[in-house]
Amino acid sequence: MGKAGLPVSPLAPAGFPDLPVIEGVEFASAAAGVKYQGRTDVTLIRVAPGASVAGAFTRSSTRAACVLDCQSKLAATEDDGAGAAIIVNSGNANAFTGARGQESVDAVTGAVAQALDLPIGRVFSSSTGVIGEPLPHDRIVAVIGDLAAGLDKGGVADAARAIMTTDTFPKGASATVAGQGGDIRIAGIAKGSGMIAPDMATMLVYIFTDASIPAPLLQQALSGGLDATFNAITVDSDTSTSDALILAATGRSAAAPITDLESEDGRAFTAALHGVMRELAHLVVRDGEGATKFVEIAVTGAVDDADAHKIGMAIANSPLVKTAIAGQDANWGRIVAAIGKSGGQADRDRLRISFGDMVLAENGWRAPDYDEAKASAYMQNAELRIGVDMGLGQGARTVWTCDLTHGYIDINADYRS
Amino acid sequence: MGKAGLPVSPLAPAGFPDLPVIEGVEFASAAAGVKYQGRTDVTLIRVAPGASVAGAFTRSSTRAACVLDCQSKLAATEDDGAGAAIIVNSGNANAFTGARGQESVDAVTGAVAQALDLPIGRVFSSSTGVIGEPLPHDRIVAVIGDLAAGLDKGGVADAARAIMTTDTFPKGASATVAGQGGDIRIAGIAKGSGMIAPDMATMLVYIFTDASIPAPLLQQALSGGLDATFNAITVDSDTSTSDALILAATGRSAAAPITDLESEDGRAFTAALHGVMRELAHLVVRDGEGATKFVEIAVTGAVDDADAHKIGMAIANSPLVKTAIAGQDANWGRIVAAIGKSGGQADRDRLRISFGDMVLAENGWRAPDYDEAKASAYMQNAELRIGVDMGLGQGARTVWTCDLTHGYIDINADYRS
Repeated sequence: MGKAGLPVSPLAPAGFPDLPVIEGVEFASAAAGVKYQGRTDVTLIRVAPGASVAGAFTRSSTRAACVLDCQSKLAATEDDGAGAAIIVNSGNANAFTGARGQESVDAVTGAVAQALDLPIGRVFSSSTGVIGEPLPHDRIVAVIGDLAAGLDKGGVADAARAIMTTDTFPKGASATVAGQGGDIRIAGIAKGSGMIAPDMATMLVYIFTDASIPAPLLQQALSGGLDATFNAITVDSDTSTSDALILAATGRSAAAPITDLESEDGRAFTAALHGVMRELAHLVVRDGEGATKFVEIAVTGAVDDADAHKIGMAIANSPLVKTAIAGQDANWGRIVAAIGKSGGQADRDRLRISFGDMVLAENGWRAPDYDEAKASAYMQNAELRIGVDMGLGQGARTVWTCDLTHGYIDINADYRS
Repeated sequence: MGKAGLPVSPLAPAGFPDLPVIEGVEFASAAAGVKYQGRTDVTLIRVAPGASVAGAFTRSSTRAACVLDCQSKLAATEDDGAGAAIIVNSGNANAFTGARGQESVDAVTGAVAQALDLPIGRVFSSSTGVIGEPLPHDRIVAVIGDLAAGLDKGGVADAARAIMTTDTFPKGASATVAGQGGDIRIAGIAKGSGMIAPDMATMLVYIFTDASIPAPLLQQALSGGLDATFNAITVDSDTSTSDALILAATGRSAAAPITDLESEDGRAFTAALHGVMRELAHLVVRDGEGATKFVEIAVTGAVDDADAHKIGMAIANSPLVKTAIAGQDANWGRIVAAIGKSGGQADRDRLRISFGDMVLAENGWRAPDYDEAKASAYMQNAELRIGVDMGLGQGARTVWTCDLTHGYIDINADYRS
């Protein structure tokens, strides 16, 4: 069972992965009773002095107080070598809580700064859960002493669990890159299941690496990977008020510092980082509320990548496409309709639509050897690949989504998450 | 029961209204077995010589052959006084059917032109149903003789029923305006239940009036009403390939011709026409697939009307807002999130959100006298009014939607409509 009493997604991996320890990063989790009882709901992460920090956040115009606070701290703070901390709670998003929202952020990050002897400008916070309820920050402040005392570099799996809301499994991913002089390790955790249609970043994601890399390069490596990873997934088209991704590099690897993203190490690191981001993004889709199918939509031949993205997301967000997939119905006509409404450039008579290796439609109508029985059989798979070639240019983007099922309605009509 | 065996929507009106006869318009319906068995599925409408015709159609880039054909005929045809005809089938959308789509349109409209002695350029057609299947137009052509013989000015209720697909009730609305010298009558019918997020017009809508009004003015009166009526509703955010609205004015009223929309009669006619359009649009929402709640979302105080529209539609299309409404949960935080993702201009601290007469949130957070029990009680109503005041300017737009329920999943996961 997941934390909200929901059965674990059928698309979940076998277990939480064995993430490498990132030297210079420690975790501690506690049960503060912010909303949920009998489970951990607060995580503290300490990043050792000398680390670089980068971030990406939702562009929602009603974003949460903690997101605004992270953005202003990341923009203002010189990378002064003091180290950093991240404090995360689930159960309450501290969003749309007016001026009181920032007061709560100040109370929580101030208490962490004092406990860990850090400048408050280096203490970042995230909150996830219900929107519009004042954050009972005293409950969080009350456990900070225990959290500070319990920091442990092996605590990442507990942290991944403490940040869950309607998630049915904890999410982690890692990569190791052979750098000049030693390995570089990357490990990340994420939470997210509903209200997933990221716009710059998604949900709560924390990625750590022992690479030695200056903050501006770290931010550049991160930003360059967003469009093809977190911004290329959707569960329900609803962009969150709280999306936040924080990436910290501790510089504790034996590998030489990365001073150029175009160097051999720079490229290897960036590719590995984007791989971890993609894997975490996929895990969020695999835990999409009510999901029974993991769906990859590969758009090619669009006029440009932005148009391919727009078309892919229109298909991925179409309730009619998603319910057809839930019903295992090879109803590709609904894909045609979604392409039509996308606003992307399309020429009906050049479109090609395929499911797996099967071409279903081409040249403006059903493929001559279309086989309904074969298409229906393909739809029984838990992992589906929909190919859409626009036949117009070189633009391409792959996006990921899940189906829309009775489970989504159950979760969202019956619980206030 | 509706035509697809679905129970009638709980939001349906008591019965089909008693529409006034529009002199110069006749209807006939028949069972051609296009897809459904044992029900009428083709309607022929004849409009007498001298009528003006106007139209509005989907902007989907994958729009159906019949839509493209209507657009080219309306653009090309001089209003030559020959009269007009409309032939409509349900069960097959004739969309994404390649060159064969236009061949089907030519076969059907050609047969009607011959039977009624009309130029083919004045025969409009609509098809609604499954996308991507070739239209079995021979079955339609086979019943055109019977249809032509059965034309009857009292046949409008049968026509409203023949054009249904997943609709659970037939939809009609009317108005009568006192013009100079006599009454002007307006009567319209519509179908639509799923794939409703109109972009220029919605689904299949046919409106008739005995007003005497030249085609360009008729088109202007029609176009001016779209944004606040059909373009202001959404069931599921999926824009159809087949949306079409055709409006014909027969000039048979005793009232003086309308030669200026700004005259007293012109204003009265336009207001009445927009009222009929709004009522038909509401009926489509009341028959939204799986709907149990009719929801009005009134956005005010936006920077302009376009921004108000964008914000209203983001709320109306949010699966999280719609499932909360289905669950009778006063989860206004999801409305905040939808405003945030809308792309519309928002200032968190000026927002005010109300349900009915209750203010839930203002000045950036929960209203001081917010009463969860009262808000929850309000959510039990079948008709809900959500007010959103942005506090920024004079922009306003009201939009309408329904909730997202298990019924929507049942209909769309389990049937190929």
